[in-house]
Amino acid sequence: MSYDVIVLGGGPGGYIAAERAGHAGLKTVLIEKRALGGTCLNEGCIPSKVLLNSSKIYHYATPYGALYGVHAQAPSVDQPAVIARKRKVIHTLVSGVGAAMKANHVEVVNAEGTILGRSGTAIQVGAGGKTYEGTYLIIATGSKASVPPIPGVKEGLASGFVMTNLEALELEALPKRMVVIGGGVIGLELAAYYGVVGCAVEVVEMLPKIAGPIDGEISALLQKGYEKDGMKFHLNAKVVRVDADGVVYEKDGREEKIVCEKVLLAIGRRPVADTCGVEKLNIAVERGAICVDECCRTNAVNVFAVGDCNGKSMLAHSAYRMGEVAVNTILGRKDRMRYKAIPSVLYTNPEVACVGMTEEQAKEAGMDAVSVKLPMAYAGRYVAENENGVGIAKFVFDRKYRTLVGAHVMSNYSSEFIVACGIMIEQEMTIDAIREIVYPHPSVSEIIREAAFAVSL
Amino acid sequence: MSYDVIVLGGGPGGYIAAERAGHAGLKTVLIEKRALGGTCLNEGCIPSKVLLNSSKIYHYATPYGALYGVHAQAPSVDQPAVIARKRKVIHTLVSGVGAAMKANHVEVVNAEGTILGRSGTAIQVGAGGKTYEGTYLIIATGSKASVPPIPGVKEGLASGFVMTNLEALELEALPKRMVVIGGGVIGLELAAYYGVVGCAVEVVEMLPKIAGPIDGEISALLQKGYEKDGMKFHLNAKVVRVDADGVVYEKDGREEKIVCEKVLLAIGRRPVADTCGVEKLNIAVERGAICVDECCRTNAVNVFAVGDCNGKSMLAHSAYRMGEVAVNTILGRKDRMRYKAIPSVLYTNPEVACVGMTEEQAKEAGMDAVSVKLPMAYAGRYVAENENGVGIAKFVFDRKYRTLVGAHVMSNYSSEFIVACGIMIEQEMTIDAIREIVYPHPSVSEIIREAAFAVSL
Repeated sequence: MSYDVIVLGGGPGGYIAAERAGHAGLKTVLIEKRALGGTCLNEGCIPSKVLLNSSKIYHYATPYGALYGVHAQAPSVDQPAVIARKRKVIHTLVSGVGAAMKANHVEVVNAEGTILGRSGTAIQVGAGGKTYEGTYLIIATGSKASVPPIPGVKEGLASGFVMTNLEALELEALPKRMVVIGGGVIGLELAAYYGVVGCAVEVVEMLPKIAGPIDGEISALLQKGYEKDGMKFHLNAKVVRVDADGVVYEKDGREEKIVCEKVLLAIGRRPVADTCGVEKLNIAVERGAICVDECCRTNAVNVFAVGDCNGKSMLAHSAYRMGEVAVNTILGRKDRMRYKAIPSVLYTNPEVACVGMTEEQAKEAGMDAVSVKLPMAYAGRYVAENENGVGIAKFVFDRKYRTLVGAHVMSNYSSEFIVACGIMIEQEMTIDAIREIVYPHPSVSEIIREAAFAVSL
Repeated sequence: MSYDVIVLGGGPGGYIAAERAGHAGLKTVLIEKRALGGTCLNEGCIPSKVLLNSSKIYHYATPYGALYGVHAQAPSVDQPAVIARKRKVIHTLVSGVGAAMKANHVEVVNAEGTILGRSGTAIQVGAGGKTYEGTYLIIATGSKASVPPIPGVKEGLASGFVMTNLEALELEALPKRMVVIGGGVIGLELAAYYGVVGCAVEVVEMLPKIAGPIDGEISALLQKGYEKDGMKFHLNAKVVRVDADGVVYEKDGREEKIVCEKVLLAIGRRPVADTCGVEKLNIAVERGAICVDECCRTNAVNVFAVGDCNGKSMLAHSAYRMGEVAVNTILGRKDRMRYKAIPSVLYTNPEVACVGMTEEQAKEAGMDAVSVKLPMAYAGRYVAENENGVGIAKFVFDRKYRTLVGAHVMSNYSSEFIVACGIMIEQEMTIDAIREIVYPHPSVSEIIREAAFAVSL
């Protein structure tokens, strides 16, 4: 069977690539061994948002709502109902991806695909006992949870005591005590859900701060907020062993043990680049990731790699864009990946959304940068909707070109308006043009406007 | 006392004008007879959002939360606490405006200002028994609720049975039954608050649809949603009389009476243009609004009119921008009002946010327009957070220039991401540039992306 494009992997990078290729009239086959939607839809971004939405509602049903004049008695979370709803949402969205494939004439093969090599100029991929030949191949094999060589982790995973994101999103019974190893985005989102709905959560993080690359002042404020919700944090703490009933970590030269019912392992994810036969086409792999150029081309002719498997920007929305860049390149449309305006979001309560550079990064890059820090209380709607809110926002500007280069916002709704900052960065709008933008009043997005007038450029 | 700029009125248009003028080094005085912040802050946008935030929280505390696996018993709204919080929020924000005036060296006079005339080139304004002379005058006298000549309304207002937005935002006791006259934005926001927290609300609207200029399909969906929450609507219905115990309206040639405890009058607002002495400077007024050009200049030399009083776009954020355009014009900076990218929002649950033209308006303007309509379920986060959500989004594009010209979204969070559409319109981004924007996944804002790829241009 001969195709214009073979896509290997049906996550965000793969399915969007297939959809766009099919839409453009290319004969396309998408090979996926599990469900369409990949990690993002089945055990990542989407299911975690279903859970976090429920915990936000629960948050308001607790005495927290009283801050706004709303009272309720005996609030409770029906964990099996939350998980059932999560499955339903996934089912709806996976079906939607399937429908999009059909509408764009993409053939979907539900089997594991393996690169076999080339026959002439055609690239051969085997799946489900058949051989598929394609002029182009787009590899979108995603990533998987990193499993560190910590004693006891392997056994814990086998017994179910230790979970990755996958199992943590399928927990039908709320554990009383949970330890989260890793205070990055994935760890925090799940910790925040379980911490709010009634589980005692402790987070063990090796670094001196939580929330990975997020601005240090913001992550410190976040941590304080989580602590108010009852979560505990152990920073600069290294897990040395997982026992059958808890986690042992070392901090300041001393070992401590936290007894718990469940352990969530969330120390990061690594690209899946070595299991689909890349060696058959001599595709270059470095530090576990497939090497690509700015058009997502690998070193092998007509072979692209998009999404987590190339390790460039391990986010679903980066994968979307990479899938599109790959297809545009196949179609001869000039396009390339740019990473300066890719947002990232932490969806806890409150949310944190960022795009572009921090002031530190800008200065390291040799930029004449100036930044503005504002309390979120500068936005009237924030005050109206956030009693005792401590959110802040930081905006970084380039003095030379008088442009915005970074935005870092700790506030609910920031996930939804950060794209406005992304557009300003991507379009290289000058501060004059930015100041002429009209925001609805009142909206939290007006914080951008406040920053634009607070900065001297 | 001599100033560069006298600003008459301390609402959004006036205080921003004063702030910018003061910041630019102009000697500025702001004259306001009541509290800083005007209608918007004291009895409009901000207080209504405080109330609507509480009703949204209450909404989730009711059986509605059970859709998301969250249960609570005996939910209730403490109306006096909501009103007390509203006052606190207003106090905080009014203080903030005061601080901004101080920081920018704006003198604030708390008295009613009246234009006296000119002395040479100086414009004279009297306030609190003193005369202020300015090189420039910016009139920002705002608007007030329209009071129709319906029998019984005047008496009802005097007795307290009939309320405007002002009194409706100060109600310490929840009425059992309320009639809202006027199904436009102000009427709907207050109706939605009282309707959700336990008052039986009926809306009487003269037009065949609610929500004023909002797209008809969206307003019909909204109405259905409100009806599910228990509100009743009488369309094509004309109020003929207000009795001491209810409202009488005529529909299809028949009179009906609704007995109620309170009546909210929300048929619209009209500019305040005739009480500050505009005639002393022969300032042109047409149909109750001060005439201005694209720089907000009146026909009188060095006199500007910004915000609701000029009737061009009666929204707080339009007033902000007008204040800035006026000050930029004074400073000799080239600037002008553009109305094509001014958003408008209805903050009920769900929200509706719009910017730019509807397809109908675009076609009436002679544009080769094409529109895309999508269910909000195309955005994964919408599905994750909106059980049984019926939201839709409509996007209008100009085929000739391949640009976005309008966006109309019924969905929560739309208030926060509509500015992204505003930027695309304002910047005249082509569809190619729009398609290269990266949105965080999952976010409801991704509906813009879906539309950009769904349209053929």
